[in-house]
Amino acid sequence: MEFDLLLKNIARHVQLDQTEIGFFTSLLEKKKMKKKEFLLKYGEICKTENFIVKGCLRVYAVDANGFEHIVMFGIEGWWVSDLLSLWTNSPTTYYIDALEDTELLQISKSNLDALYERVPKFERFFRIILQNAYSAQQLRINQNLSFTAEQRYLNFIEKYPSFAQRIPQKQISAYLGMTPVFLSMLRKKLSKK
Amino acid sequence: MEFDLLLKNIARHVQLDQTEIGFFTSLLEKKKMKKKEFLLKYGEICKTENFIVKGCLRVYAVDANGFEHIVMFGIEGWWVSDLLSLWTNSPTTYYIDALEDTELLQISKSNLDALYERVPKFERFFRIILQNAYSAQQLRINQNLSFTAEQRYLNFIEKYPSFAQRIPQKQISAYLGMTPVFLSMLRKKLSKK
Repeated sequence: MEFDLLLKNIARHVQLDQTEIGFFTSLLEKKKMKKKEFLLKYGEICKTENFIVKGCLRVYAVDANGFEHIVMFGIEGWWVSDLLSLWTNSPTTYYIDALEDTELLQISKSNLDALYERVPKFERFFRIILQNAYSAQQLRINQNLSFTAEQRYLNFIEKYPSFAQRIPQKQISAYLGMTPVFLSMLRKKLSKK
Repeated sequence: MEFDLLLKNIARHVQLDQTEIGFFTSLLEKKKMKKKEFLLKYGEICKTENFIVKGCLRVYAVDANGFEHIVMFGIEGWWVSDLLSLWTNSPTTYYIDALEDTELLQISKSNLDALYERVPKFERFFRIILQNAYSAQQLRINQNLSFTAEQRYLNFIEKYPSFAQRIPQKQISAYLGMTPVFLSMLRKKLSKK
C-alpha cells in the first residue's frame, strides 16, 4: 500500500493508533515526478515536507562559478525538504530535483502544524529523525575537513551502498567535492588495489 | 538567576507553567569548567545534553595526522553535546573542551527521557532547536564546498561576530579548514582593502 513504507518508518519511533493514522494520512498528498523534474528551485519558498516512497532526489546549490554542489541525496524512506525555507518562509538557496522517476508523499506546513497540535507524538518522531540527520551531517562536516578524497569516497560507498549503485558517478563526485575526472581516476586506482 | 537564560531560551518556542518549570529545573545539574578542561574525550560516551550559561565550548575531531578539525563552537545560550553518542550510547569520535572558564546546566539522558514523558512540550522545543541547528549545518556544508577561503572567513565573522571577537584565530582557522598562517595572511590582505 502507498502509506506502508511511511507508517513503518514512523512505527520505529512512535506508536500511533488507528484514529491518529487516519488523521495523519488524510493530511498527505501524493506527487509523482519525472526524472530531471524540479521539486524546488533557487528563490522559491519550500512549502512541504517530502517523504520519498520511490525514486531518488538530490538537493544542491550552484556557486558563483556555476558549479553544482550536492548537499544531500534521498532515496526511499528519506525525508527531503529545505527546512530553513519551510519554517522561516524564506526563499531557498537550493535546488531539489529528481535523479529518477520519483513518488512522494507531501505534507504542507499548515498541515504539519495541525498534525503537531492534534498528535504531539509527531513532535517526538521528527525530533528523533532530526537528531539522526543532525548527527550524520556533523560526521560529514568532520570528514570533509579531515578525510582525504580517497577516504571520503570509500566511506561514502561503505555507508550508502545503495546510493553508490544507483546514483551516477558525476553526481557522487559533486557530493564528495571532487571533479568527475578525479573520481574516475580514484576509482581506477582503487580497482587495481 | 542561574536559570534565566535557559528559561528565556525555551520561552521563545514553548510556554511552560510553573509546575513544568519546577520539574524541569529539578532535573538540571550545574557544572563549572576551567578553561582547557574537557567535557568529553574521544572514546567516552556522552551522558548529558549541555546548555551553556557562560563561557565557550568547542567540539573537535583529530584526524590521522594529528590535525584538529573544529566541528562547532558554542557560547552562552547554545546547547552542545554529541547527539549520536548520547542517543545511541556509543563512544564519541569527538573532543569537547572549554576555550574559556565555562558554566553549564546539564541534563542526563535518563532525565531527558523523563522530561519528554512528563512535559511533551520539550519534544517540540528540541524539535525546533534541531531544525535550526540542522539548517545551519546544511548551510555550512554548502559553503565549505562552494565558498573560497576568503568568503568562508567573511561569512563567519558576519554571521557570528561575537565568536570572531572572543575565539582565538588559531581556533577559527581550524573551524574554517585553513592553516593559522593562511588565515593570518588573509586577514592582512582584507585589512588593506
